[in-house]
Parts: sequence; structure tokens; C-alpha cells
Amino acid sequence: MKTFKIDFEPLGKVASADKEDSIMQASINAGVDISSICGGKGKCGRCKIILKEGAATPITDAEKNMLSTDEIEKGFRLACQTKALSDLVVDIPPESLILSQRLQTEGEELEVGVEPIIQKVFLSLEPPTLSDPRPDLTRVIDGIYEQKRIKPRIDFILSKKISSILREGGWIVTTTLRENEIIGTEPGSSDAKFGMAFDIGSTKLAAYLVDLETGNMLDAIGLANPQVAYGDDIVSRIGYAMEEEKKREELRRAIMNGINGMIKNLCRRNGIGKKDLSDITIVGNTAMHHLLLGLPVRQLGLAPYIPVFKESQDIKARELGIDMVEGGYVHLLPLIGGYIGSDHVAMILATRIWEEEEEKVRIGIDIGTNTEIAFAKEGKIMSLSCASGPAFEGWGVKQGVKAMSGAIDKVSIEGHDVVCSTIDDKPAIGICGSGILDAIAKLYTSGAINDKGRLQEENSRVRRSDGGLEFVLVDKEKTGIDDDVVVCQSDISSILLAKSAIRAGISIGLEKMGVNEDEIGEVIIAGAFGSYIDPESAVTIGMLPDLDLKLFKQVGNAAGVGAKLALISRSERKLANTIADDVRYVETCIHPKFARILARSMFLPKPKIG
Amino acid sequence: MKTFKIDFEPLGKVASADKEDSIMQASINAGVDISSICGGKGKCGRCKIILKEGAATPITDAEKNMLSTDEIEKGFRLACQTKALSDLVVDIPPESLILSQRLQTEGEELEVGVEPIIQKVFLSLEPPTLSDPRPDLTRVIDGIYEQKRIKPRIDFILSKKISSILREGGWIVTTTLRENEIIGTEPGSSDAKFGMAFDIGSTKLAAYLVDLETGNMLDAIGLANPQVAYGDDIVSRIGYAMEEEKKREELRRAIMNGINGMIKNLCRRNGIGKKDLSDITIVGNTAMHHLLLGLPVRQLGLAPYIPVFKESQDIKARELGIDMVEGGYVHLLPLIGGYIGSDHVAMILATRIWEEEEEKVRIGIDIGTNTEIAFAKEGKIMSLSCASGPAFEGWGVKQGVKAMSGAIDKVSIEGHDVVCSTIDDKPAIGICGSGILDAIAKLYTSGAINDKGRLQEENSRVRRSDGGLEFVLVDKEKTGIDDDVVVCQSDISSILLAKSAIRAGISIGLEKMGVNEDEIGEVIIAGAFGSYIDPESAVTIGMLPDLDLKLFKQVGNAAGVGAKLALISRSERKLANTIADDVRYVETCIHPKFARILARSMFLPKPKIG
Repeated sequence: MKTFKIDFEPLGKVASADKEDSIMQASINAGVDISSICGGKGKCGRCKIILKEGAATPITDAEKNMLSTDEIEKGFRLACQTKALSDLVVDIPPESLILSQRLQTEGEELEVGVEPIIQKVFLSLEPPTLSDPRPDLTRVIDGIYEQKRIKPRIDFILSKKISSILREGGWIVTTTLRENEIIGTEPGSSDAKFGMAFDIGSTKLAAYLVDLETGNMLDAIGLANPQVAYGDDIVSRIGYAMEEEKKREELRRAIMNGINGMIKNLCRRNGIGKKDLSDITIVGNTAMHHLLLGLPVRQLGLAPYIPVFKESQDIKARELGIDMVEGGYVHLLPLIGGYIGSDHVAMILATRIWEEEEEKVRIGIDIGTNTEIAFAKEGKIMSLSCASGPAFEGWGVKQGVKAMSGAIDKVSIEGHDVVCSTIDDKPAIGICGSGILDAIAKLYTSGAINDKGRLQEENSRVRRSDGGLEFVLVDKEKTGIDDDVVVCQSDISSILLAKSAIRAGISIGLEKMGVNEDEIGEVIIAGAFGSYIDPESAVTIGMLPDLDLKLFKQVGNAAGVGAKLALISRSERKLANTIADDVRYVETCIHPKFARILARSMFLPKPKIG
Repeated sequence: MKTFKIDFEPLGKVASADKEDSIMQASINAGVDISSICGGKGKCGRCKIILKEGAATPITDAEKNMLSTDEIEKGFRLACQTKALSDLVVDIPPESLILSQRLQTEGEELEVGVEPIIQKVFLSLEPPTLSDPRPDLTRVIDGIYEQKRIKPRIDFILSKKISSILREGGWIVTTTLRENEIIGTEPGSSDAKFGMAFDIGSTKLAAYLVDLETGNMLDAIGLANPQVAYGDDIVSRIGYAMEEEKKREELRRAIMNGINGMIKNLCRRNGIGKKDLSDITIVGNTAMHHLLLGLPVRQLGLAPYIPVFKESQDIKARELGIDMVEGGYVHLLPLIGGYIGSDHVAMILATRIWEEEEEKVRIGIDIGTNTEIAFAKEGKIMSLSCASGPAFEGWGVKQGVKAMSGAIDKVSIEGHDVVCSTIDDKPAIGICGSGILDAIAKLYTSGAINDKGRLQEENSRVRRSDGGLEFVLVDKEKTGIDDDVVVCQSDISSILLAKSAIRAGISIGLEKMGVNEDEIGEVIIAGAFGSYIDPESAVTIGMLPDLDLKLFKQVGNAAGVGAKLALISRSERKLANTIADDVRYVETCIHPKFARILARSMFLPKPKIG
């Protein structure tokens, strides 16, 4: 088949594409991350590229809709709509590039006793003779029994190799035991045992390398979820996976490649062999959990949103295609329900949310496209999920971008002066979630919007454009995108809708627990987004209740911390199962007052005095 | 790649072959069984074919060695040495065809209580709602718990399908439970549960279809072991497997294809779906067990002959590539040692050899290339193996053939009259194992050979040929092969060597048990070959001890019966494990008097008087 070379200019990466591949597909194959939200349907307009040299397929109707005449003249195309007809040189403008996306991996650590499920056993065995013709495996098991008083079974695939490993090692070998099973054997002596914990989010993946001897974290990395190429939001991906089993498998492979890439990377840069990666734990939301395992997701996307199962799983890594020690297992923490996954369980585990001191309620909240909220009082936990939508991820926000280099992440307004800080102090290319939250709070306190969120035309930075009113945050000459960065009226509506869903969730939860806002002892804000927001701004727009700011605690990636706890301790693993069993799951959308509470939450609250 | 059509004349089967394929390979692909002992090395001369039409590669040196000038002139070739250069028409002479090989599958049955490891559970479930959003699997497990008070786990691959099966069945489903695991789920109601037991011999495979509800056998089939194409004797195959891992996998696939073919056949002709095949048990000798699992065999072929493991195994059928219910397991019965496999354990199980009434020793013997012998007295069992060689399978016997149509299987000599019976009463094409045993016994009693096995030249049917003396059993005009069928001096030596090994094994065993021949209470002769021999002839040539003929009991395929017992009863499965643990394994070749006993056993015993 005829293939063409595609040269991605700013990166110097070259991809090859056959005539069936869109430039988007070619970019994925080459590891170039072009932004996309709609999953390659030509509907989000995020994957703009500029064709510099070469011939491509004619411009499509979708492109005509998404690109301005000016852009079309300059050679802009949508990567998902365009296929090569010759070798191409392509320029990716900064706003289309997912480059240095901020992927928080750190979280507030909790100390627990180190009791990994893995042990290594060193064996120095007598070789067989005609008068001692015990089978190879029996000899190994007898050796383990002498030291550990257990008689383990062996992984089937490993059993095919043990005879040659024993002979190669001159009957001196080290075995890796996982509870009652031999999952690894190597010639000679080795103490090394490592584990990895993964937090599989819709947008990003985080991986943690842990020494299972000490329980210490050695390294961590983040990666944009490779499934993003199939749709930024999980609903697009579920739609894609529902089309046919092959596509479900394609999504599964995408995430698997991401995981294996992180394993390779962490192993290489820490000088660790695959054979020493003895244990893996994974947390994630229910949809990611199902897509990762290749489970069907159709029933997850439709009411009553039923998962296939919720119990924790120990699955042979090779059944999933994950690289680790020969016979190793992946432990997936349990889910709670269709919209509350094991990341929430891990968050509860890591924050010990049930351990309140006084008769107060503690709230744990992880803000995302779905925002999960846990409420704990007197040892009881209740959780719910609210559909806050992808506005904080940039969807429905005109110049919304992910938390990447050049994204506005903080805004302050003093009189007529607007001061925006950007990630990496680069010229602004758009606004990320924490930035838009800040912006709206400051627009409100400065009077640029009223309590219904309407932009006030009399403000000197508010102007009327084709799409209605907009507030200019950064003037064109100071940005990195040859355009102003603005907040427009529809952006404000998107964010108010998102914040009202979250606030409605908190209200319903408190009501179900039978407590008032003044009985809240603490609000733990977990997750990457939550760790970058300004709680004061969140209170200003009414997303969070109006409490003493000292009661808000931003803990970073608590789900990742929970996954690490389950990795280093079998007691924590059990505790996670208990949490999943005991948490009371509340379906918010069947709450009789849901619509009313949601509508009430849409308004901006009265500004605090002082 | 260019492929040619090969028309196998007497069968009307057409194969396609590319230019790399020998005619032997093409015949295997087409399911045409051409005889072979050497594994396609051109050394046994069994795969003679006649080229009728078309062009083939030039005659090789191996063929010049194995074919007479006369044969070459008539167009004879060796299938393993010849490749097509055009479309071919090929004739397979009867003696080269493994056609209606006698593959005994029946054995003396033993009644035990039916307690299969499998149960089917019918579930009529409530569909999920927003107020009952239990995950799909939880719903199934809760349903099973209500009836059975167990909370099973589910097979991982099956978990991917359960959501759609539940919806397809309108929440009415039947699950297949194996102990604590759901291994199958189907929409609607079904009681059908079937199992198959396999006896995997070096030469033949036997499969039994059993109704797991009643314990009744419904059907049985036999098949020549497809590995025979890689070498008739197990030592050739071990050699082949040792060459490289790819070849080991090739052998594994050959046997797996045989098993799957038998499953398909038994299912089809009994109207059973793959989903209803819920359990499988397998017995076989240690080498076949290892080759079947893809375990290395190098260490099996060299002293001290160490297996990888000997414990019974429950392996997911899909890890082996065996077709059955989605999440089903194959149970492999335990081995005893490098030369005593699970077929011997199954034979002990089926014959209840330890249940002797008086203070006698009972002997169980399965004659083959390796002959395994069990000795039981007062509840204790001792087993040993002796290298009897493949003479009874036709190797080392000039006109030896397998037990197939036209093979001489019985011989009687009255004065100068020799009466040979053949399988299916066809004109003789050669002599099978029971025939050569009979022939030598009758040659001895009629005086045609002396007590050292020497042919007596004065006998009217003894003549001198290029290869030495030979006894004409059937004259050319009465055979089906355009030649006489004879017993030559070297045939007699081969058989005497084989019988002496067996007799030495019996002697060593009795000595180890501390008993004399007159304390033998019973000799159970198991196995296909053993069920066709005439015990009197076996005693005449000294293969078996000179006992009252009533003490010999031919029980047929006891290994197959044992495999069936383990299939229908979990208690029998446990008992097999106990047998394997408790049997005392004796290595004959390290017995200090082994060589002397062997030499002594070479002679023919004094004829009985009367």
C-alpha cells in the first residue's frame, strides 16, 4: 500500500501514513499529541493544523463549519478530516498541541505499615539424581516450604520455563511468591521487588513506582490518556466503543499501550527489569475501568447505568497485555457504581475520610466531568456523583484549553487592571479550568457580571462581538495565538451549569445525611483540577459552600495515593474492599427535588462582606 | 505462492501443497493418514506412495536406500522425500495407509457415585432499575447465592459477555458453575452438561463423551495421535521438540488439533453444543503430558529423567487452545514420575488394584513402548517402568504394521499348516503386535525355533533370504501386498528383547515387594495391545510368568476408564491424587541385578507339558 511521509514541523517528528489514515491517525501513530475533544468527528475544531507543503484531500463540510475563511486561506485544516495525497509538511499551532500538559501526580501521603502481597524466596537446591528423582517443581516447592511453611502452586506459563531456569542457575534460583503462587523465577539471587500503582483518569494517567521492601515511592510520571484521540470526553468514547467490538478493543489497546509505555519508561529510568515488577494496582472511574478490561460499556451509558461488576479483581497481567513479571497479577480496586469508580474508593482510603474527630461531617470531592463527592459522619460514608460536565476541561469554553504551557490558570482583577498568570509563564494561548473559575469569580466581585452571570456592557473591557458580549482577558499583542483571549457569555453559562451541578450534589448529600452546612468539619478537595483551583473563587461563584477557608484542604491526587496504599499493604487492599461494600451510593438524578436544587444553584451567591 | 493439487487416489481426497510441502505434509494437512515411523526423515520406508501422474522433485538418496529397483521403476516414492512440481495423482498402497487402525477405547467399567465438579444453575432475575442499580454480575451472584449458598467468582473473559447475555435472555439465564467459579452463561434455560475424558497415548488418542448428570458414557472415539507424523516413537518426538521451541509448539499444536477434532466430532454426532461441554479430564504418559502442555522435555529424555511437575493440574482450556465452554478447565490427572504418567494412575484407579482380598500380590501391566507395571499388596502400591521398545508397534519387525485392516493378529500352527487371521478378514498386509507375539509362541511350540529363538533351517517353511533365515507365514498369492508375509530372524530378536524387558520388570518388582511368583493373585493386563494378546502365547514366550491362565484378566483401556471416573466424580479425582502421592516409584535401571535379570529373561522358557 502506498504510504506518505508527514513531517510535523514544530516537533521534527515524521510519521508515515497510508491513504486511509487521517493526519490525526498518523499523528497518533507517531506519538504526536494533537488536541481533540470530539473523537475525530470534525465537531470540536480543536485539531487545527496548517498545511505547509504537499497535497491533501479536499476540504470537507465539517472543516468549512469549523474554520474561518481567513483560516482556510492561511492553509488551516482539521487533522481529523484531512488525508495525505503526497508527502506533507504540517505545522501544528500551539493551541492544537497537547504538549506540556500539567498532569499532577503528587498527593498528600499517608503512612501505613508495609505488608506487600509479594515476597522473594532464595533457594539453593540439590540437583536431581536417580535416587532423588523429584520433579523440578516439587524440588522448588519443597525448598519454599522449608523456609516459608507454604506449598505454593505455580503460574502455568512459568511452569514451562522453570526446568531451564533451574539448570541455567545451577539449582540456585530466586522465586517471586504472590500469596500462594509462584509468579516469577530467576537464576541466582535477587532481592529486588517493585510495584507500580496506576490512576487511570479519563484525561490523564498517573503511574507511581514503589519499592515493595520499604514502601517508598521512587518515581512517578503522568501521561495524557491515549484514548483522548478517540474523544476527549468519556461519552464520546463510550459511543465509539459501542459501535463494534473491534472498536472497544481498539480503545482497550490505546490505554494498554499507555500503561505499557509508562512501565517501560519508569523501569528504564530507574534501572529496573520487567522481572522485578512484581505487583500492580490500578484505580480509575467506572468507564475507564471497563474500557481497560475490555468490558462492554453500552449499559454504562444508558440509565440505570449498570456496571458489569464492581468487586476488586486480580487478573493475570498477560490476559490484559500488561508487561510485568511472567506470572504477575494486576489488582483492580473495587468500584462503587456506574458513576463512582475505584478512584473514589482510593480517595476515601487515602484521606481516611471516615475518621472525623468531632460530630462533624467531612466531605471529599473530586471535580471532573463527573464530580464524585463522599460524605462521612460517625463512621458512615455516603457517595454520589454529579454530571458537572467537561467545562473545566475546556469543552463549551470558547478558548478553553487543558492545563498546558501558556494556559491562563489564575486571574485577578484590580479595578481596570486584569492580571493573568499562565502555566510556565508563556504567552497566553487560552484558559484552563482553574483560570476560568478564577476569571468568573473576579468578574463577579469586580462587577463585570451580575448575580445571574450576565456580562455588564458598561464595563470597559466588555465588548460586543458576533457571538454576543465578551470580556477581554488578554489583548492580542500579549498572547501567543494572534488573537485576544476572552471570556464570552456562553463560557460563563457553561461554568455556572457545571458549578451548579456540583453545588446541587453537595446540597443533596447534606440533606441525605441530615446535616446542615454549618456541621461541615472539613472539605477535602482531591484531584488534579481541585489542587489548582482557588477555594475562595470556588466559594465566590457558589460552587462550594461558604465556609471558613481553613476548612478546605487540597490534597492533590488522593486516588493515586490510595492506589499506592493498596500496593504496599494487603490490609489497605482489604480496607478498600470494605469501603466499596459499605459506602451508601445515592443516585442524585432520582432525588425528587433534584431539578429545583439544580436551578437554585445556578445563581451566583451574594458576595461576602469583608 | 504457487500451490499444486494432489489427488490421493484410493480415498478421493484432494490436498493442496505449495512447493515447500512434502507429499507427506500435504497428506497431513488433508487428513490423509500415511504411515510413518521415523518422523519424515526418510529412514523407515513406511510412507511409500506411487506417483501416477504429474511431475515431482528428483528421487533422493534416502529413497534409493529404501526402495528396490523394481519399486522405483513402478513409480514408488517416499511421501516424506517428495515434493510436487505440478498437480499430482498419487496412489497410496494399503500398507502405507493408516486407515481403519484398531483403536480400542472400551475398558472394563467401574461404578462409582456421580458427583461432578460442574453444576448448572437456572436464574430468573429482576432487571436493574435506578433504585436497584446492582452491577450485572452482582445480580447474577446474588441469584446463585439464593439457591446454592455460594458466592462464586466469574471467569474473566466471560465477564466481558455477561452483560449482553443477560439482556439477550431478558434476565433469564443459565450459568455453569465449576466449584466456586462461573465458567459459562447462556440465555434461557438449559440442563445439558457434558464432559469428555481423554486418554492421550503416544500412538492413539481415545475420547469419551459422558453425561455429567447420569455419569453414563454416551459415545467414544479413537484417533491416531497426529504427532505420529513427527515420529512414531516418543524418543523421536522428544528429539524433535528439543531442537527448538517452535518445534515443541508444533508438536503441541498437532496433539491439540487432534483433541479439538475429536471434540468437534463427538459434539456434532451427539448434537451437543460447545457451551455444554463443561468439563474435561486428561490422562497420558509423562512425555505426552509434557508435550501437550508445551512443557520442555529435554530433561525427560536424559537421566535422571525428571518431569517438570507431577501434581494434577486444572488449566483454563483457552490457555491450551482446547475448545469447550467459555471459561472451562481441563483437569490433568497427576503423574508419578519421568516414565510413569497419569495413564498409569488412571489404570490403578480404574482397576482398584490395591483392593486385594487375600494376602496375594496383584499386578497391573500396560504393555507399550514403555511398559508400566504396578504391584499391590496390603494396600501398598509400587510401580516401575521398563523400556520394552516399540517392537509390538511394528518397529524393528520387517513386516510389522499397526493393528489395522489386513494386519495378521492371530497365528496358529498345526504341523505344517499355518493359519493366520487378519483384522477385518482382509488379505494379509503385515503383522501387528498381537500377531507377532502369537507367531513366535507358535513357532516355538511347533519347533520352528529353538529356546534361543533361532529359526530351524530344517523346517519346511523356513528359508534363507538375503537377510538371513525367515519363516513364511502367508504366501504371496494369498496376501494383499504382492509379496510373502514372513517372520525373519531379526523380528524374533526384537520381540525377545521386548519381552525380556517386561519380564525383568516383573521379576524386579516381585523382588522389591519381597514376594514370589506363586504369591501372585492376579495379573491385570490393561491397554489396547494387552487386550488383543493371547495370554497363553505371552506365557509361552516367557513375557508373563507361568501362572494359571485364570489369573490373567484383560481389562481393555483401563486408563480411559480412570479418566472417566475422575470426570464424573470429585472423590475419584481426589483419590487419583492420593494414588500418585502414595505409589512408590522404583527406577529399574539402577537395580544392581538389572542387567543379569534382563539377560536371563531373553531365553524362551521350557515349554509346559500338556
